[in-house]
Amino acid sequence: MALTTKSVKPKIVALAGGVGGAKLATGLQAALPPGCLTVIVNTGDDFEHWGLSICPDLDTVLYNLAHLNNPEMGWGRQDEAWTVLGEMARFGGEEWFRIGDRDLALHLRRTEWLRRGLSLTKATDRLRRLLGIPSVILPMCDEPVRTLVHTEEGDLPFQHYFVRRRCEPALVDISFVGAESATLSPEVQKALYAAELVIFCPSNPYVSIDPILSVPGLRDFLRRSSTPKVAVSPIVGGQALKGPAAKMMRELGEMSSPLTVVDHLGDVLDGFVIDRTDAELAGAVILPTLVTDTIMTDLASKERLAQEILTFGFSLKATALLAA
Amino acid sequence: MALTTKSVKPKIVALAGGVGGAKLATGLQAALPPGCLTVIVNTGDDFEHWGLSICPDLDTVLYNLAHLNNPEMGWGRQDEAWTVLGEMARFGGEEWFRIGDRDLALHLRRTEWLRRGLSLTKATDRLRRLLGIPSVILPMCDEPVRTLVHTEEGDLPFQHYFVRRRCEPALVDISFVGAESATLSPEVQKALYAAELVIFCPSNPYVSIDPILSVPGLRDFLRRSSTPKVAVSPIVGGQALKGPAAKMMRELGEMSSPLTVVDHLGDVLDGFVIDRTDAELAGAVILPTLVTDTIMTDLASKERLAQEILTFGFSLKATALLAA
Repeated sequence: MALTTKSVKPKIVALAGGVGGAKLATGLQAALPPGCLTVIVNTGDDFEHWGLSICPDLDTVLYNLAHLNNPEMGWGRQDEAWTVLGEMARFGGEEWFRIGDRDLALHLRRTEWLRRGLSLTKATDRLRRLLGIPSVILPMCDEPVRTLVHTEEGDLPFQHYFVRRRCEPALVDISFVGAESATLSPEVQKALYAAELVIFCPSNPYVSIDPILSVPGLRDFLRRSSTPKVAVSPIVGGQALKGPAAKMMRELGEMSSPLTVVDHLGDVLDGFVIDRTDAELAGAVILPTLVTDTIMTDLASKERLAQEILTFGFSLKATALLAA
Repeated sequence: MALTTKSVKPKIVALAGGVGGAKLATGLQAALPPGCLTVIVNTGDDFEHWGLSICPDLDTVLYNLAHLNNPEMGWGRQDEAWTVLGEMARFGGEEWFRIGDRDLALHLRRTEWLRRGLSLTKATDRLRRLLGIPSVILPMCDEPVRTLVHTEEGDLPFQHYFVRRRCEPALVDISFVGAESATLSPEVQKALYAAELVIFCPSNPYVSIDPILSVPGLRDFLRRSSTPKVAVSPIVGGQALKGPAAKMMRELGEMSSPLTVVDHLGDVLDGFVIDRTDAELAGAVILPTLVTDTIMTDLASKERLAQEILTFGFSLKATALLAA
């Protein structure tokens, strides 16, 4: 189809968190000509560990788009080794967040660049080029915005909630510390202005998508933009395919349902994508809805889903143009 | 003998650079009751690499005194792995200074502590305790003092001269950048005041011992102190057992001889130790001189040499007391 010919270079923006976002981004990269895709990534999970700047979602997207990700673990590198982590025990270093030896090389380089004054945007661009990734990968902003999870057991920085406590404490609320001081980077602005389609990857709405939308100006831009915006439900059959989204919904007093995702993000969306498992809910969605297989198991299923979403998204654009 | 009984706790200070110093320090630690030895270590070689604070001589002393050193390489850890270094190639990281995976854990911890405001003295003490080392290990000072090697090919920071250029450029002069602002730490002062014997390990006089003596007040303290001070020649049979000392002597227009070491350090010394190979030079040394086997191959030979030096050093003290 036309979208994949080299002569057509549509500009597509994907908003992504970790694993689910990285999977669809991989499909989009495969479905599109090189250079068409820009992925704007959640940095609310970022934190300092072993004295290094760790950006878990950026790394997951980088490793997936470079085909270096570890599909079994869902994070980190293939063929990973763990000598440094093992040695950390001797020196009393924290071991609850597992950094592999290959993964560590990236954290060292990025931390060195950031300490020298490079922006996270520029450091990420260096990394994706060194990894041979044809897509642009942008942190949602260069300022530190940190997801703080308010739980019944107190406030927890995101990685402490997610990794150290395995999402066990019941959720009360979430805040994005520092968001009020964040700004849209020139690179994010440029990508959003150029976008012909914006895709919300099947990422957790509360801790992957909301932090991105918390950057001042981003949600308003999307709400006012005529560019079609399509979200893929991270909830399938009442469950999150990965991560705590369904558990969080229940703890917040919501149904763990694609409808809750639409309620939460609906004001910025023009279309929605749900899994065939939830086909009977399509009539209840207030937006044009694509029902398809959304579970991505291999590169072929990622690319197929990406193609369907692109076709659906552009059809919304055509409909809007015809209606205008 | 009395020195090794648990009831006698003589306070011994050793000044050390890298390999040769670490070997004798290991012998002294073996020969003395726990807690008797303080090693004051050259930090002129320290530098930043991969964004981490690297202290090559402190690390060599730490690893040797913890019996974790790699005897084949002469630096770094036993059973080392190299995954991170290999991965650094992908990210354009510098590879000329080889940091192993186990070694890296120490650099990460120390760098994290220093960034949080801990002094190098305190960070080193944490490391030696975590490694179960019964001796005190002190950096020569907490301020950065950096050995700069002036060569016929220009000025080189020490590790660039020593590791990257393999000591090939001909030496013109050496300076210790920052030395004028350095101070004797309370810990170094306390160790020097308490010392009953000061031993200059067989380390390079120009780039291991001189940086230590460059800390304002240290050389004067030693010169005026009545504590016996004994140096072990790092030159045996006209050659340095390890490192560029002999080459440096020739390039500075000196003989590569133990006598050059005495000329260089003589004003602070009360005794000198040379190898049997150089026995015929003993008469030319202006100080009381012990002639013995100074080549340390295993723990037994390190401990034997240490014992002989301790006996020799304390005999100098007895002689001085009798003469007084």
